[in-house]
Amino acid sequence: MRRWNGWGDEGVTYPVPAGAWDFLEAMLGPGMTPRDATLPEVVSRVPPSRLPPHPLVSTDPEQRVRHALGQSLPDWIAARSGRVPAFPDGVAFPSTHEEVRELIRYAEAAGARLIPYGGGTSVVGHLAVLPGADPVLSVDLGRMSQLVDFDARSHLATFGAGVKGPDLEACLRARGFTLGHFPQSFEYSTLGGWVATRSAGQQSLGYGRIEDLFAGGRMEAPAGTLLLPPFPGSATGPDLRQAVLGSEGRLGILTEVTVRVRPLPQAEEFAAVFFPEFEHGLEAVREMVQSDVPLSMLRLSMPAETATSLVLAGHEKLMRLLERWLALRGAGSGKCMLILGVSGTRGRVRRALRQALAIAGSHRGVYAGRRFGHEWVKHRFRSPYLRNTLWEMGYAVDTLETAGTWTQVPRLIEAIEQALHGGLADQGEKVYVFTHLSHVYRHGSNVYTTYLFRLSPDPEENLRRWQVLKSAASRAIVACGGTISHQHGVGIDHLPYLEAEKGALGMDLLSALCRTLDPGGIMNPGKLVCREVAP
Amino acid sequence: MRRWNGWGDEGVTYPVPAGAWDFLEAMLGPGMTPRDATLPEVVSRVPPSRLPPHPLVSTDPEQRVRHALGQSLPDWIAARSGRVPAFPDGVAFPSTHEEVRELIRYAEAAGARLIPYGGGTSVVGHLAVLPGADPVLSVDLGRMSQLVDFDARSHLATFGAGVKGPDLEACLRARGFTLGHFPQSFEYSTLGGWVATRSAGQQSLGYGRIEDLFAGGRMEAPAGTLLLPPFPGSATGPDLRQAVLGSEGRLGILTEVTVRVRPLPQAEEFAAVFFPEFEHGLEAVREMVQSDVPLSMLRLSMPAETATSLVLAGHEKLMRLLERWLALRGAGSGKCMLILGVSGTRGRVRRALRQALAIAGSHRGVYAGRRFGHEWVKHRFRSPYLRNTLWEMGYAVDTLETAGTWTQVPRLIEAIEQALHGGLADQGEKVYVFTHLSHVYRHGSNVYTTYLFRLSPDPEENLRRWQVLKSAASRAIVACGGTISHQHGVGIDHLPYLEAEKGALGMDLLSALCRTLDPGGIMNPGKLVCREVAP
Repeated sequence: MRRWNGWGDEGVTYPVPAGAWDFLEAMLGPGMTPRDATLPEVVSRVPPSRLPPHPLVSTDPEQRVRHALGQSLPDWIAARSGRVPAFPDGVAFPSTHEEVRELIRYAEAAGARLIPYGGGTSVVGHLAVLPGADPVLSVDLGRMSQLVDFDARSHLATFGAGVKGPDLEACLRARGFTLGHFPQSFEYSTLGGWVATRSAGQQSLGYGRIEDLFAGGRMEAPAGTLLLPPFPGSATGPDLRQAVLGSEGRLGILTEVTVRVRPLPQAEEFAAVFFPEFEHGLEAVREMVQSDVPLSMLRLSMPAETATSLVLAGHEKLMRLLERWLALRGAGSGKCMLILGVSGTRGRVRRALRQALAIAGSHRGVYAGRRFGHEWVKHRFRSPYLRNTLWEMGYAVDTLETAGTWTQVPRLIEAIEQALHGGLADQGEKVYVFTHLSHVYRHGSNVYTTYLFRLSPDPEENLRRWQVLKSAASRAIVACGGTISHQHGVGIDHLPYLEAEKGALGMDLLSALCRTLDPGGIMNPGKLVCREVAP
Repeated sequence: MRRWNGWGDEGVTYPVPAGAWDFLEAMLGPGMTPRDATLPEVVSRVPPSRLPPHPLVSTDPEQRVRHALGQSLPDWIAARSGRVPAFPDGVAFPSTHEEVRELIRYAEAAGARLIPYGGGTSVVGHLAVLPGADPVLSVDLGRMSQLVDFDARSHLATFGAGVKGPDLEACLRARGFTLGHFPQSFEYSTLGGWVATRSAGQQSLGYGRIEDLFAGGRMEAPAGTLLLPPFPGSATGPDLRQAVLGSEGRLGILTEVTVRVRPLPQAEEFAAVFFPEFEHGLEAVREMVQSDVPLSMLRLSMPAETATSLVLAGHEKLMRLLERWLALRGAGSGKCMLILGVSGTRGRVRRALRQALAIAGSHRGVYAGRRFGHEWVKHRFRSPYLRNTLWEMGYAVDTLETAGTWTQVPRLIEAIEQALHGGLADQGEKVYVFTHLSHVYRHGSNVYTTYLFRLSPDPEENLRRWQVLKSAASRAIVACGGTISHQHGVGIDHLPYLEAEKGALGMDLLSALCRTLDPGGIMNPGKLVCREVAP
């Protein structure tokens, strides 16, 4: 059974070695396990539904609790404390385009608002129900998850938008293909959700972001049906796929998605390299991507993240050996771990690995074999489970991210870490911060920062701590000219910072898209854009 | 001096061997050189300007003639016959963003319409002045062509939008870089024009379409200034760069463009392969692109195009030898020529060529060395000059194009060729048709068809012939589910077919973009979209 107030399956835990607790206690002070509200407690607080009855709509309170929130830290604070600001008034599980249209008509007649629901994994508040006078219906796409069409000649597959990562990959694997889209939320997140939030998978360097994989599809909007044909290329004006990508439920409900797939790679490798200092790693990674080495991923952890990963990994004896060996080769406390991945034919894998390691070597990188890479792959979808473990020990963990040009990246990292690091100093609380680059491009990189702080027994205080930190880091990103989100989306958490990058006119364009497909403003209001442009 | 009523520089001619005329005469009947209007004749017909005087605006009649038309066949018929439907009332050559804004304000005050003008190479009517009551100002970006910023670390270069292909490449080459965008119009077309029309260069397989190269920029619109930062990746809702790409002058005037550049390749090769039948070539090309062979281009000509190219190339003796040799190896009258290109390090070039030739060999392809490839490269920007030569001998030549999935491609080719082939049968005129694929993707390809027909002495009749053929081919494309344009854009020629692919709601979205950035409807009206959505 899926956790209702945390990440993942209830049966899966992520125990951490004792050393990790000592490490955290030294960094942040001792944690105190907060008292969590129970599911029955929260279910008992669900108010009566304001929706008129409809055969497709369930008003079951537990369903309403389970669709009330995503996975942002404010969502967690709400769920764990039981102080959920608002619940959807009902949940629908449509199976066909016609049922989705029927639900839109029903919502229009009932004066209700609609929140499309994929895997419930948003970390920026896409799914939050904003308190208000209008009833809210969550539309769960979970039943629209079939393979609709497969064109092996053109490497195109069409699925119901509600298909989850593992089901999609299993279905493609049976045909000898893969999509290659593996965001950390892979276990639960859905194809439609990936498109609606402009998701980037861990191997986007090789397979592309969802923008590159999304070939076409179908959206049911209040104003009608939008069909997007899977042209390989077209010069017929603005590409409407790009309006749907990142639409965050504001334009309509994606019901069907056609994706570009690839044959399963013959071979796949993940290897680790350590650099004595971050600057060496940064230059190596930039050179690899700018030299067209055909890698599927590059993930460079800064020193604090490298140290944290090694502590969390346990294996104390092995670690001591590794550290001694690295120290001999010049990589000491400032060392940075790079995980690189490569997929393809055996020859290509071998060649790309050789090229990458040659570049790494020229930047003082020390090849550490495939073990760390394989450990990383094995646990690639596991780290969100760590949030459960940490919370239960009294620590909140959140991540934030941006992207900028290679020229901007060092300044972005410094500004974000600085903003977070001292963010709670006025109340004597410390913040533990570490960063990696996991999505690199020829002309820049994302910057992905994790930060931990102690939980207070008071949920309001926890929310305040998060707000102080999130706001400080977001302002730092804006000041350095980074994008407010490289891979998480806008939702409600990034909305205040969006105009700084889109401009007033850009916000008008977004509002115009919303007003055209959703003239009544019933689709997921309050997310992405809050202004309506004057007609 | 640039030709005012044809392609390119007046000093450049494209003589064709005598054999080519015999070939054409056999195909279409003897041509009759039409009488062209002279520049002074046309200049003398330019009516007085309706624009109020402004220091930035020239009303010189010759400038107005030179900015009245692009390079579509209707444009040619108008220019050659001297029956130009309408001229701009003035031409401005702004040098700064502020001057562009000043021109927008001036146009608003004067009730004028603005047509942004880059290189004047549009083949679908983007630049045509539509007759009407409002004065029209052509805004030539030719003076905004400087390198504004160069970030060698991030492989980003920012230029004034009016920079022409050769100037842009020369400027980058001096720094060891290239954009790699080489449309056939390269000699004259501009960076801003490429973005505004979603251009695809001949080596887009390796370097990407302009969509992949356009990192950001600046647009001056009636509603204000739109700044697009060059983020390497972002998840902040719909990507507004994609609204500007293909905006065809409807949203505003692009003044500055940041592009993703690459170091100049160490080596570059172009080679030719012949296949006995088109189906073999098609399968080989699909396999190459779906196997990730890192090629920079693939251009597969069908039998008629292959034969025509060989006739036009002259070298009769060499050709006879080649044909004999190919016949021995199974490639006879149905033979198809593939030109493949590869760029990069010497090792990569060698490896990619070896991989590609192995695939070609497995589909009965016969490697014909590098000579044809190098000939093609040498003349890659020359073929538009052939239009002049042919016109002067009494033949019209036009091209049209689409794209579809690999599953759709064979049907598209057949339907287009069939529609054109018999298109003028009712008046006893023949049409000579040939096709190639020049932009291939993992999941499909463009289809690029050239067609020739005889000119009548009556320009109205020539226009009618073109309309009959264009309409028949366009309807065939729509019926087969192809896009109405893969690389030329919409303009006025493709406008009637756009709704079939975008849908009514999609057209509403395009109109909403226009209305937001250009509430008064003064930007290049009548192109791309003609409907205004109700407020």
